[in-house]
Amino acid sequence: MSGPALIGLDWGTTSFRAFRIGADGAVLERREAPAGILQVQDDGFEAVLEREIGDWRRVAPGCPIVASGMITSRQGWVEVPYLHCPAGAHELAAALHPHRLREGELVHFVPGLSREDEEGVPDVIRGEETQIAGLTAGRSTDPDRDVLAVLPGTHSKWAGVEGGRIVWFETYLTGEVFGVLRLHSILGRLMEGDGHDRDAFRRGLAYAGEGGAGLLRRLFSARTLGLFDRLPTSGGASYLSGLLIGTEVAEAIARRPLPTAPVQVIGGSRLVDHYLEALAACDIEAVRAPDDAAARGHVVIARCAGLMP
Amino acid sequence: MSGPALIGLDWGTTSFRAFRIGADGAVLERREAPAGILQVQDDGFEAVLEREIGDWRRVAPGCPIVASGMITSRQGWVEVPYLHCPAGAHELAAALHPHRLREGELVHFVPGLSREDEEGVPDVIRGEETQIAGLTAGRSTDPDRDVLAVLPGTHSKWAGVEGGRIVWFETYLTGEVFGVLRLHSILGRLMEGDGHDRDAFRRGLAYAGEGGAGLLRRLFSARTLGLFDRLPTSGGASYLSGLLIGTEVAEAIARRPLPTAPVQVIGGSRLVDHYLEALAACDIEAVRAPDDAAARGHVVIARCAGLMP
Repeated sequence: MSGPALIGLDWGTTSFRAFRIGADGAVLERREAPAGILQVQDDGFEAVLEREIGDWRRVAPGCPIVASGMITSRQGWVEVPYLHCPAGAHELAAALHPHRLREGELVHFVPGLSREDEEGVPDVIRGEETQIAGLTAGRSTDPDRDVLAVLPGTHSKWAGVEGGRIVWFETYLTGEVFGVLRLHSILGRLMEGDGHDRDAFRRGLAYAGEGGAGLLRRLFSARTLGLFDRLPTSGGASYLSGLLIGTEVAEAIARRPLPTAPVQVIGGSRLVDHYLEALAACDIEAVRAPDDAAARGHVVIARCAGLMP
Repeated sequence: MSGPALIGLDWGTTSFRAFRIGADGAVLERREAPAGILQVQDDGFEAVLEREIGDWRRVAPGCPIVASGMITSRQGWVEVPYLHCPAGAHELAAALHPHRLREGELVHFVPGLSREDEEGVPDVIRGEETQIAGLTAGRSTDPDRDVLAVLPGTHSKWAGVEGGRIVWFETYLTGEVFGVLRLHSILGRLMEGDGHDRDAFRRGLAYAGEGGAGLLRRLFSARTLGLFDRLPTSGGASYLSGLLIGTEVAEAIARRPLPTAPVQVIGGSRLVDHYLEALAACDIEAVRAPDDAAARGHVVIARCAGLMP
């Protein structure tokens, strides 16, 4: 095993992901474990590091470690204050929060970002700022070209990048609303299975409509269409997913002009395909971002901070 | 106990409500029990009738019984097909569904209503049609004047009445979305208690804004305001309630012109006060409808059907 020049950690609420990165910035190896911050007791974070990537560290003593994600939240390992938006790789590198391990090495925590919307209400990201830094650094096109990034998930994030810095971002509760309605609501009781039914998904997208308004009213359709045998129970979950994702996309794109470059959808899950379909349904050009955006972000931030060549 | 001229049953998903009604249409006595259709096993409905109002029936053998609500749904006692909207008391009376009890008497079930929205998606009510019939029959003003009725609840209903008939209605999933987010989401974890915090409720209303769009985005504020200590955890649930009710009201009033008469908000719960406040925040005149709208509806439908004088 060749020693890494950098170890990147994307440490979230439910999962731990680690990247062994070479001096050229390429990912040599990746590991993933269900050891998110919710699964780790008290001071167990250093033990997780030893268990999951102890061998990487032993072959490269002193190798810098950069960590991003919910690991820097109040429920994580070390709480790091949010950096205010706009911010890019340089600002993130300057605000890295070093934490010394018992063995003497440093983990450099990447801060999350905060901003306020036009009504003065705060919004936050932790982890996505690193993926977005990686996305824009890795692009072959003009690095100063404006980028719109979408990161689907429990709390979907939309972010605008100008001149290599995140200038705004917004959170949509789409995934979480889907989850609680699917599992705990009267709507969910009429649904069977969670396989993807593309026709039902598209019907949900279509009903979400152009304006995106009226979600509280339209949600009831997930019940009535089943009640009148116009939607199979096996398609109920996909229909609800389409309705919610379609609403998110309609809400988000109504808020500001789109950049000329294709929208970049970041993530490794099938959810990315669903967002690409939802964007296409609105005639918006969108592409799946390259894999390992988080690792690319660790590299660009580490380089800005002088932690690797 | 004077014998009733009519027994009205408002039999829903979670509760059983019965009205002993005199020949002049006045409610002589009301009873309520936690014996909704979800609590009744198999053929237990007739036993519930005997247990809850057997004494009423014995003093007035042959007294007609009119029943409305989810008792006529597939999960209820006797499934009654929906009547298509527009419909008023006369159409409901003509469509009463008689069901003979073992003792020979009839229960007359009131059908629910169905309609389709402009996209052809169905919507339904069961029980509210009777309350609305009672509301418009009991009004001292011109019975042909247009009425907008709002029935807050797990599934809030808005309905337009013209010439004494329900000409449209819509369902909003507001109460259910509140419930699942309060109990099962990350938002709910930051909330403590369910007491009404009027200031927090008003802040939620205000943030819902005029257009009502962007709910999926705005929901995240219920988390971030707590995170930045700008909302007490004790006010979290009221804030979320205000945000959701404010969004419902904004969505609903944007869809069609308001009638000149005050909006009638129907129900016995504190939720009615919250809807009155939300409507007032939008400068919409609204009043609490008289109590026992369901019983008034049973009377007007029974009279149309010739079941009582």
